[in-house]
Amino acid sequence: MKFVENAAGRKVPVEINGRKAIPFQGVDVPKVVNRKATPPVRQKNNYGIPGEKVFHSLKDALEFCNVGNGQTVSTHHHLRNGDKVGGLLFDTIHEMGIKDVVWFPSATFPCHDELLKYFEDGTIHHLEASAKGELGKWVTGGHMADRGLLVVRSHGGRYLAIQNGDMKVDIAVVAASTADGFGNANGLYGPAAFGHMGFAKADVEFAEYVIVVTDNLVDFPMEGPWQIEGWQVDAVVKVDSIGDPDKIVSGTTKLPDEEQALYVADLAAKFCDEAGLIKQGFSFQGGASGMVLAAAHYISEIMDKKGVKGSFARGGSTKYLVDMLEKGQIGRILDGQLFDAAAVESMRKNHRTHICTNPAVSYSPHGKGRLAEGVDIALLGAMEIDLDYNVNPLTFSNGRIAGAIGGFQNCLGGKCVMILAPARRKENIIVRDRVTTLVAPGETVDVWVSDRGIAINPKRQDLLDAVKGSSLPIKKIEEIQDEIKKELPDSPTDIPKLGDKAVGVVMWEDETVIDTLWEVPAFE
Amino acid sequence: MKFVENAAGRKVPVEINGRKAIPFQGVDVPKVVNRKATPPVRQKNNYGIPGEKVFHSLKDALEFCNVGNGQTVSTHHHLRNGDKVGGLLFDTIHEMGIKDVVWFPSATFPCHDELLKYFEDGTIHHLEASAKGELGKWVTGGHMADRGLLVVRSHGGRYLAIQNGDMKVDIAVVAASTADGFGNANGLYGPAAFGHMGFAKADVEFAEYVIVVTDNLVDFPMEGPWQIEGWQVDAVVKVDSIGDPDKIVSGTTKLPDEEQALYVADLAAKFCDEAGLIKQGFSFQGGASGMVLAAAHYISEIMDKKGVKGSFARGGSTKYLVDMLEKGQIGRILDGQLFDAAAVESMRKNHRTHICTNPAVSYSPHGKGRLAEGVDIALLGAMEIDLDYNVNPLTFSNGRIAGAIGGFQNCLGGKCVMILAPARRKENIIVRDRVTTLVAPGETVDVWVSDRGIAINPKRQDLLDAVKGSSLPIKKIEEIQDEIKKELPDSPTDIPKLGDKAVGVVMWEDETVIDTLWEVPAFE
Repeated sequence: MKFVENAAGRKVPVEINGRKAIPFQGVDVPKVVNRKATPPVRQKNNYGIPGEKVFHSLKDALEFCNVGNGQTVSTHHHLRNGDKVGGLLFDTIHEMGIKDVVWFPSATFPCHDELLKYFEDGTIHHLEASAKGELGKWVTGGHMADRGLLVVRSHGGRYLAIQNGDMKVDIAVVAASTADGFGNANGLYGPAAFGHMGFAKADVEFAEYVIVVTDNLVDFPMEGPWQIEGWQVDAVVKVDSIGDPDKIVSGTTKLPDEEQALYVADLAAKFCDEAGLIKQGFSFQGGASGMVLAAAHYISEIMDKKGVKGSFARGGSTKYLVDMLEKGQIGRILDGQLFDAAAVESMRKNHRTHICTNPAVSYSPHGKGRLAEGVDIALLGAMEIDLDYNVNPLTFSNGRIAGAIGGFQNCLGGKCVMILAPARRKENIIVRDRVTTLVAPGETVDVWVSDRGIAINPKRQDLLDAVKGSSLPIKKIEEIQDEIKKELPDSPTDIPKLGDKAVGVVMWEDETVIDTLWEVPAFE
Repeated sequence: MKFVENAAGRKVPVEINGRKAIPFQGVDVPKVVNRKATPPVRQKNNYGIPGEKVFHSLKDALEFCNVGNGQTVSTHHHLRNGDKVGGLLFDTIHEMGIKDVVWFPSATFPCHDELLKYFEDGTIHHLEASAKGELGKWVTGGHMADRGLLVVRSHGGRYLAIQNGDMKVDIAVVAASTADGFGNANGLYGPAAFGHMGFAKADVEFAEYVIVVTDNLVDFPMEGPWQIEGWQVDAVVKVDSIGDPDKIVSGTTKLPDEEQALYVADLAAKFCDEAGLIKQGFSFQGGASGMVLAAAHYISEIMDKKGVKGSFARGGSTKYLVDMLEKGQIGRILDGQLFDAAAVESMRKNHRTHICTNPAVSYSPHGKGRLAEGVDIALLGAMEIDLDYNVNPLTFSNGRIAGAIGGFQNCLGGKCVMILAPARRKENIIVRDRVTTLVAPGETVDVWVSDRGIAINPKRQDLLDAVKGSSLPIKKIEEIQDEIKKELPDSPTDIPKLGDKAVGVVMWEDETVIDTLWEVPAFE
């Protein structure tokens, strides 16, 4: 495998899974692509009468879609940790004796640990997505590296990779909580309702074949909205259950109860207030991680006190955002996904103000603008931050994958990007000399809020000026690191010794390679 | 100009406006196209922050979109005869000194007669669309033929021509009754509300540049639905008025009061009843022409009497369809366009049952099925029908253009296609030996209902059987022709002598050439 050093000083491969790769060239030097990919043209005569596209089994549908060895098959994480469709899909592919499938989901969840056996037996060749839980451990253990690199993309980057033809999807398998026999579908109704289907947009538009899988097949024509229109769907499969409702959306989301998280969240909200960010018509990006959820909650309290009304909040939405919408504290929720039952119910009833968005309109840098740049305050969690404000939300400091990057890179387009993370986690120093894995270049990050104080990126002199004389604990990032280093004198702050074998890559949002994931052989 | 005889026996050109043309090969021998067109990839960095895409004038927006001589510019007929955007566009293009623009609207209306001056002075090179009123007269008079042929396409065929790259749109100019400064837009709200924007779908997806023109610019992010998402829009222009509300949608639609039209409509409804077509869960395609409107009304009365509930009606919708929806007589309106204010209001409030459709999902034969094939009864008007059941809804019997073909060809996908037309109009015999202009091949037409009786296509033995012994005036089509011929012995029934110069073509829905429009020099 050949490597070069990219513009961020990271060693990255020049070829990924058989495709030529372009090293990261800078945040604002996007890879130039002239034309979108060219999806197939299909003929109506092969699809009969609307309503008559239902197959008796996923196997039959896959056969109709010419499934074969070595193809790229995609799924989506709308069902989150309750997803049963990924499992059903690979059980079926395995039974059919198909081998070497490239799995290209929009994200994986711990429920997909059960698919490890299909990696091991060669049904799945490799994965291009985030890899949580056991799967992540297995990948960073080097077990997939000889077949393929894990490719971690942002939500916007995944859209773009498909749109631009960097990734060609042979068969997209799209779970729907309601569908009719023509393939019209949505995620709003049915026993496994999850909200909307934005993450499948690129796949539905560009894949060679599209299969809708539902456990709530209704008469054609189903009621609206048709989040997917049947003319884009090759086959519809009825199954017993697409997912476990309790794990798809939790019944309720709740604020964290750890004191440290609440302290950081409160500090973040106070900073926004003192920096003048909480003003009429402002907007922010929420989320479902406890610390960020709590920060949004405190911001909402400040809005109440000051009588400020916001323009919109970007979700992942929860009952907290829904409450803000319904009491008029914000005008819109522009929603990427839904994290609890209250959010799903809101999307059903507040259809004019609670708007489904997708990675093209929200996040993709290869469009005519996107929502991300319209967000005033982006609140993001992280695993590590370094003295140059580079951020790693993906791996532990030992190099093992901790989570996914979701829309993280895309949210960096916001006007004030705030990282909420403690300065240490147990014996590990979070504020590093260099982040173990580079996901967000420091120039895109404005503020770090920690339990030891608030650090403002020196490039944001305006923010430094805005909070001058404030009673908030504004510090230099180096000061915070020094403080922690004194507490943990033996704990490292630079990139640890990792294996020599590349096991994956992290793409910048424009499909250039920003960093490499290396084998973590010592870890178990 | 070189011509060949196509599979329907019509003489058609082998090249159209510089593009190679494929002659019609048969209804079910669709032209094979493998891949869709490749739209440009744009970079977010050229579009700034959402909400900041507004241009002060259409001229500035056109310049941003690199307007130039000889380009193809599209508009849409959502504003129907109240449209002011077409006029504004070409006034601007004219002022800018741009020449030889190919105008590619989804349809023209009589309000566009004012653009004749721009054809005459070379601002507009030629038109690819239907041509009503004075424009139609001018085209069939041969005045455009030396520059370009008029290309008449069905709604589904227009989608397909863009999707497949047969027609490349340089700049799409899309009128919206509400938009925000990011380019999110819909047709549901604002002083010139018209419903939805389905006819612009192909243009927005595939054009090089997209300009949204609105008279109701609201704060970003506007309320939903976002019928167009801003990430697909290059520029937003605020104008004083996009259209005259009274002419966009009439305040009320009403049934015709001519006895003959009501008789034909009643007969059509009775035929549907006796043939067993009005049954639980059936569907039909409505429309706004008086005779078809009346037929739908009579069908609704029969449904009432029999206690039958329909699955859906396809619009163009009117208050008659809305009444049926709201009293539960039909479950859904699947709407292509809206003809009156009641329909617009219904689309706002019945958002789960009154569904916006577009030519891709409804009509295009190059998709994975379409709604048209799901319609049990398609009710269509016509200018002529012939003894082989070929139909001409486009030209008078003298060859002059009378109207547009809209979704006519696409509706032929319905299970029972019924033509409603009188057997004579004044001195003109409507039932011909051969239609003057071939739009619908006879094999796609099932029944002709006229004021002189009902003729059933012999290929539909099932329908002939179903009404055997009925008291309805079922006749052979030849009998009806004989009856009229006796009344009008001097009136011709075959194709008249037309000019030698081709002035236009009619495309079959798959972008093959089904017939030629010839100069009508004698006509004034």
